Amino acid sequence: MIKPGALLEKITTPADLRAMPHTDLIQVCDDLRQFIIDNVSVFGGHFGANLGVVELTVALHYVFNTPSDQLVWDVGHQAYGHKILTGRKDNFHTQRYYGGLSGFPKRKESIYDTFGVGHSSTSISAALGMSIANQYLGDNEKQHIAVIGDGALTGGMAFEAMNHAGFTNSNIIIVLNDNCMSIDPNVGALKDYLTDITTSKTYNKVKSDVWNLLGKLSKFGTNAQDIVSKIEGAFKSALLHQSNLFESLNLRYFGPVDGHDVDHLVNIFNDLKQIPGPKILHCVTTKGKGYAPAEKDQTKWHAPGLFDKLTGAIQKKVHDKPQAPKYQDVFGHTLVELAKENTKIMGVTPAMPSGSSMNIMMKEMPDRAFDVGIAEQHAVTFSAGLATQGLIPFCNIYSTFMQRAYDQVIHDVCLQDLHVILCLDRAGFAGADGPTHHGAYDVAYMRCIPNMVIAAPMNEEELRNMMYTATENKGPFTIRYPRGEGVMPEWRLPMQLQQIGTGRVLREGSEVAVLSLGHIGNYMTEVLDILGGDTAETVAHYDMRYVKPLDEALLHHIFSKFNKVITIEDGCIQGGFGSAVLEFMADHGYSATVKRLGIPDRVVEHGEQRELHAECGFDPAGIAETITSLKQVLALV
Amino acid sequence: MIKPGALLEKITTPADLRAMPHTDLIQVCDDLRQFIIDNVSVFGGHFGANLGVVELTVALHYVFNTPSDQLVWDVGHQAYGHKILTGRKDNFHTQRYYGGLSGFPKRKESIYDTFGVGHSSTSISAALGMSIANQYLGDNEKQHIAVIGDGALTGGMAFEAMNHAGFTNSNIIIVLNDNCMSIDPNVGALKDYLTDITTSKTYNKVKSDVWNLLGKLSKFGTNAQDIVSKIEGAFKSALLHQSNLFESLNLRYFGPVDGHDVDHLVNIFNDLKQIPGPKILHCVTTKGKGYAPAEKDQTKWHAPGLFDKLTGAIQKKVHDKPQAPKYQDVFGHTLVELAKENTKIMGVTPAMPSGSSMNIMMKEMPDRAFDVGIAEQHAVTFSAGLATQGLIPFCNIYSTFMQRAYDQVIHDVCLQDLHVILCLDRAGFAGADGPTHHGAYDVAYMRCIPNMVIAAPMNEEELRNMMYTATENKGPFTIRYPRGEGVMPEWRLPMQLQQIGTGRVLREGSEVAVLSLGHIGNYMTEVLDILGGDTAETVAHYDMRYVKPLDEALLHHIFSKFNKVITIEDGCIQGGFGSAVLEFMADHGYSATVKRLGIPDRVVEHGEQRELHAECGFDPAGIAETITSLKQVLALV
Repeated sequence: MIKPGALLEKITTPADLRAMPHTDLIQVCDDLRQFIIDNVSVFGGHFGANLGVVELTVALHYVFNTPSDQLVWDVGHQAYGHKILTGRKDNFHTQRYYGGLSGFPKRKESIYDTFGVGHSSTSISAALGMSIANQYLGDNEKQHIAVIGDGALTGGMAFEAMNHAGFTNSNIIIVLNDNCMSIDPNVGALKDYLTDITTSKTYNKVKSDVWNLLGKLSKFGTNAQDIVSKIEGAFKSALLHQSNLFESLNLRYFGPVDGHDVDHLVNIFNDLKQIPGPKILHCVTTKGKGYAPAEKDQTKWHAPGLFDKLTGAIQKKVHDKPQAPKYQDVFGHTLVELAKENTKIMGVTPAMPSGSSMNIMMKEMPDRAFDVGIAEQHAVTFSAGLATQGLIPFCNIYSTFMQRAYDQVIHDVCLQDLHVILCLDRAGFAGADGPTHHGAYDVAYMRCIPNMVIAAPMNEEELRNMMYTATENKGPFTIRYPRGEGVMPEWRLPMQLQQIGTGRVLREGSEVAVLSLGHIGNYMTEVLDILGGDTAETVAHYDMRYVKPLDEALLHHIFSKFNKVITIEDGCIQGGFGSAVLEFMADHGYSATVKRLGIPDRVVEHGEQRELHAECGFDPAGIAETITSLKQVLALV
Repeated sequence: MIKPGALLEKITTPADLRAMPHTDLIQVCDDLRQFIIDNVSVFGGHFGANLGVVELTVALHYVFNTPSDQLVWDVGHQAYGHKILTGRKDNFHTQRYYGGLSGFPKRKESIYDTFGVGHSSTSISAALGMSIANQYLGDNEKQHIAVIGDGALTGGMAFEAMNHAGFTNSNIIIVLNDNCMSIDPNVGALKDYLTDITTSKTYNKVKSDVWNLLGKLSKFGTNAQDIVSKIEGAFKSALLHQSNLFESLNLRYFGPVDGHDVDHLVNIFNDLKQIPGPKILHCVTTKGKGYAPAEKDQTKWHAPGLFDKLTGAIQKKVHDKPQAPKYQDVFGHTLVELAKENTKIMGVTPAMPSGSSMNIMMKEMPDRAFDVGIAEQHAVTFSAGLATQGLIPFCNIYSTFMQRAYDQVIHDVCLQDLHVILCLDRAGFAGADGPTHHGAYDVAYMRCIPNMVIAAPMNEEELRNMMYTATENKGPFTIRYPRGEGVMPEWRLPMQLQQIGTGRVLREGSEVAVLSLGHIGNYMTEVLDILGGDTAETVAHYDMRYVKPLDEALLHHIFSKFNKVITIEDGCIQGGFGSAVLEFMADHGYSATVKRLGIPDRVVEHGEQRELHAECGFDPAGIAETITSLKQVLALV
C-alpha cells in the first residue's frame, strides 16, 4: 500500500475535501497526482488520462455536492482520482486485480459511481437521463455533470445526446476534457475545430478580415478604426457564441479554460452551478500532465504497465527463450504482408491503431489504412462502402466494441453480402478491464446473421491462414482472437488457404470428444498432463476453427463415434459455439451427452484471463475435471 | 399498371433524361410526381417523402453520370422517383409485394442502387467509403452523393461520418434534405438550428446588433452607416460559413436552397461538381409536396395505405364484426394505463411516436414521454440514466432498430442490472418493408446477455400482463411483439402479474409437443384444423411466453413425456428460442427429436407476413406438415 501525501491522507470522502480551504487545493492536486504515479508505477493501470484530470477531479468534488450531485465519467479509465477521493484510497492498490476494485466506475462499488462507464461516449446520455428524472421528481437543485474527452465526443451517441440535451432545460453540465487524444492522437474534423476554438482562430480571422477591409475604407478617415473596435465587441460575442458548434445545438458554451488551473476551475464551476439549462465547459488539459515522460509520449503512457517512477523506465519482462508474439502483432504484420501482395486490401480502425496494431499498416501504407475516430458504426459502414467498389477492407474492432456496430454488421455488411473482413480483437475475457470489456457475446450475436463466416484461430499460424483465406472469400468474414500472446515463437510461416468451415483433428480418442474453438484449445496440452496417460488416451481433441459454417463432415464423424462430448469456448455459452453444436446434433438426429464449457450467463468481473477461466471452470483443471466427471457419469448408465 | 406522362414515358434510364433539354425538367417532375401519386394511391407504399424529393431526384440524375457516379439514398423509402427513373417504371407497381420490387434501394435489384438503405443515417459513411475507394483507385472524377434527411442527420453515425469526411479531401456531396420531419415531426436542437440557418436568424441577429450599436456611435456621423454596410460584407461570409455547424466539421456548406426549384438545383449541382473536397448542400423541401392533403398532415401521409387520389380519402377497411386491435395500440394505451397508477413509469421513443403508439402517452403525459430523435443508442442509455434515479422507463424500439443500441443494452442496462423495459415492436417478419426491417435476430442477440428477461406475448392480454409484470420486476426486461393485429377484440382485461419465466399449457397431447413463442402460436388453431380430429388429439401445445428465463418446470414435464418436439418462433432459428430449448435438453440430459421452426439462416425478402411464414415453413400448413412428418419419421424407429 502506498502512503498518500499529508493533505490527501485526510480525505476519506469528498466532504473532507470540501472542508478544506480553497488555498489547500493546489497541494491536494499535487498529493493526488503523486499518489496516482506511486500506485500505477508499482501496480499498473491507466496512467496518462488520470494525470490529465487531477485538477478537474479535485475541483468537481470540491464544488459539487457529490454523491447527491451526479457525476458521470465518460470512459471511466480517467476516474482514478475520483476513486481515491471517494473512499477507496486505502484499497486503491487492489484495482484491476482479481477480487479487487474495478478499473472503472461501477455502481455496485460505490455510491459515488453513478454510472458504469467502460465504453466511450455514454456519459451525456446517462447524465441527461438522471437530470430529466430529477427534474420530473421535483429536484431542480441537483446538478448532473458528464466529463467527456474530445476523443469520446466523436462517438455518435454523444452527438445524439447533445441534440436531445439542447432541446431540454435540464440541469446538465458537460465538461469537455480536451486533450487532443484518444488512446492514440484523436482524429477527425472535430479535433481541428476544437483546436480552432482554443486558439480563437475563427474569431481572429474575422477580426483580421475586418481590419483589412478598413484599410480600404480610408476615405472614412481615422475614425473608422475607432468604430471598428466598438463593432468588434458586438461581433465577438456573436462569433464566439452563436457561431459555436455547441451553441448550434443550443448548449451554452463556456471556455476554453485551462484544465490544470484548479483555482480557476473552482470559480467557474461555482458560476456554472448558478446558470440553469444545458451547458458545456471546454477545458484544455494535457494527458500525462505532471509526469514528463507521459506528457511526451502520450500513447505509450496511456497504460504503460509497471515503471520506475524516478527514471521513467518502463519494465520489460526479460525472457531466456524466444516468446510467442501477441495475436495483435501477428495481425498487424500479417495485414501488411497481405496488403503488399493484394492491392485491394485496406485497413480500418476506430481509434485503436496501437491497440489493434493497425498502426503498422497506417505507417507503411498511409493511403490504405484509416483511423476513423471513436466511431465503430461508421467504421463498419465505411468499410462496406469500400467493399462496394471492389476493395477488401479489414475492419479491426475489439469484440466488445463491435457490439456498437451490430446493426451496421447486419444491415450494411451481411444483408448485402459484402466482402468486409471483421477482425474481433480481445475476444473472450479481456482480463483486468473487466466485464465492460469482456468479448463474451460475439459468437452468439454474429452467428445468427446470414452470410456471415466466423473463424477463431488456435495459434498464430491459424490466424495468418484465416486472414489470407478471408481475402479470397467473397462475403463477410469474422475472425475472433484474444488479447495477448499466442503460442508460436516462430510464427512467420507461409500462409495457406483454408477450406472455409473445416476443423482440425488434433488427436483421436476413444471415449470423450473435446471440441474447442480458438486459442482456448491450447489448454488441452495441460489438461492431458493433468489427466495422465491412460485417461488422456481416451480423450479426442478437435480444433473446430469455424463456428459458421460448422465442419459438418467432422461433426458427423464425431457424433458417430462419441456419445460424450465437451465443447470449450472463451465466449458465452448461451447461444455460442456449443449451442451451434447442439443445433447440428438436433438437426441430424444425433444424441450424446454434451457439456458446454464457456462464459456462464452472469456478469463475470475482472482478473487475469486465466483466473477468470478458472472461476468459470474452463481452465485446464476445470476442463480436466469435466472430462473426469463426464466419464464417470456415463459409466453409470 | 399505371400509364406515365408523356415525358416520363420516354425515360427508361437516366441517359434518356440527360438527353432532354433543360426546359423539359419541370414537366418531367410533374410527370414523376403524378406517377408516384397514381401508383401509391392504388398499390400503397411510402408517400410523403417521395413527393418531397421529386425535383432533387430529377436534378441529381440529370446532372450526375449515374450509375458511374454513386448516388446513395439515406433511409431508402424516399427513392421511388429514383427507381422509376432507373429502369423500374414498368414493374414499379410490384413494389413491396411478394416477389416484386423492394421498397428500398437494393444492390441486387439494380446497378443504380449503390447501397441498401432501410435503416437511417448510413448514407454518408457508405458514400465516403466509396469516395475514398475511388480516390485510391485513381478515379478522381467520380462523384459520390449522399442524400440524407434532417431526421436521419440526428442519428449519431451520420455525425461520425461527417467528422471523418471533413478530415479527408474526398469527392463527396452531402445533400441535406431538410423537411423538418422524420416520420413524425423531427425533434432536437439540430432541427432548430437548421431552421435558424434557413431563416438566417443568426446572421440577422448580428446584423441588428451592429445597427443598434451604430445608433450609439452617432458621434462618428452618417458615414458610420456606410462603413457598417461594407463591414457587413466581410462578416457575412464569416458568419454564414465559419459559423456554420457543418463548416465547423470542415465540410463546405452551401445553401439553403429551395429543393423544389429543379432549374436552380441543376445549376447548383453543376457548380458543386467542379468544387473538390467534402461539401454539403442544404435543400429545404416539403414532405408531401404537390399533394395538398399530404403537405397538410405529413405524419399521416408518410405511408397512408391506399387512397382516393382525387378526394384524398384514405381507404379504411370496413369490418362487420369487432376487430382485434394492433399490438401497437395495446402497447400505447396500456402504457398510459400503467403510468396513471405508477408515477415512476416513463416513456422513451427514438423518433417513432406514431409507429409505436408512444404518441398516446406523449399527448396525455408530455412530461413523462420523450421522443429523442433518430437516436436508438441515446434512447437506451438515456433510459438507463432515468432508471438510476428510480424511475421505470419503457423504451420502445423496433426489433430491427434495437440492433443499433445493442452495446447500450449490454453495457449500460444489463451489466448494471438496471430496471429498463425494452419493448421490441415489429419483432419477427416486418412484412412489406423486407429484410432490412425484419425483426429476425432479437431473441438470439438478447438471449446471450446476463440479467435479461425476454418475454413474447401470444395475445393482447399477455402483452398487458407482461408490461405490468415488467414494472414489478427489478432488472432489464424485454417484451417482443409483432407488427399488426392481435386476436382479442375485447382486450381491456384487468392486468395480472405473471410469474416471470413461466409458460402456459394450452393443450396436452400424447405424441408431439409444440412449443411456441409469442403471437405465432395462434397459428396452432388452424394447424389443428388442418390435421383433423385424431391426429390433432396427439398434439400438445405450450405457449412458452418467456425465452429467458425458460420455464424449466414445464420443460421437465414436456421432455419427460414427449420425445417428439417442435419449437416455433417468428425469429431466427440460429441461436433463437429453439436453441434455448436444445440447451435445456443438453444441460438436463434429455434426448428427443426436436424440429425447430423459424426464420432460416438466409436473407428472406419482403412480402406479407403470412407469405413469408409460408415460404419458411411455419405458416399453419408448414407446421402441420412438420407435425405429420415428425410422427411418421419416428414411427419408423
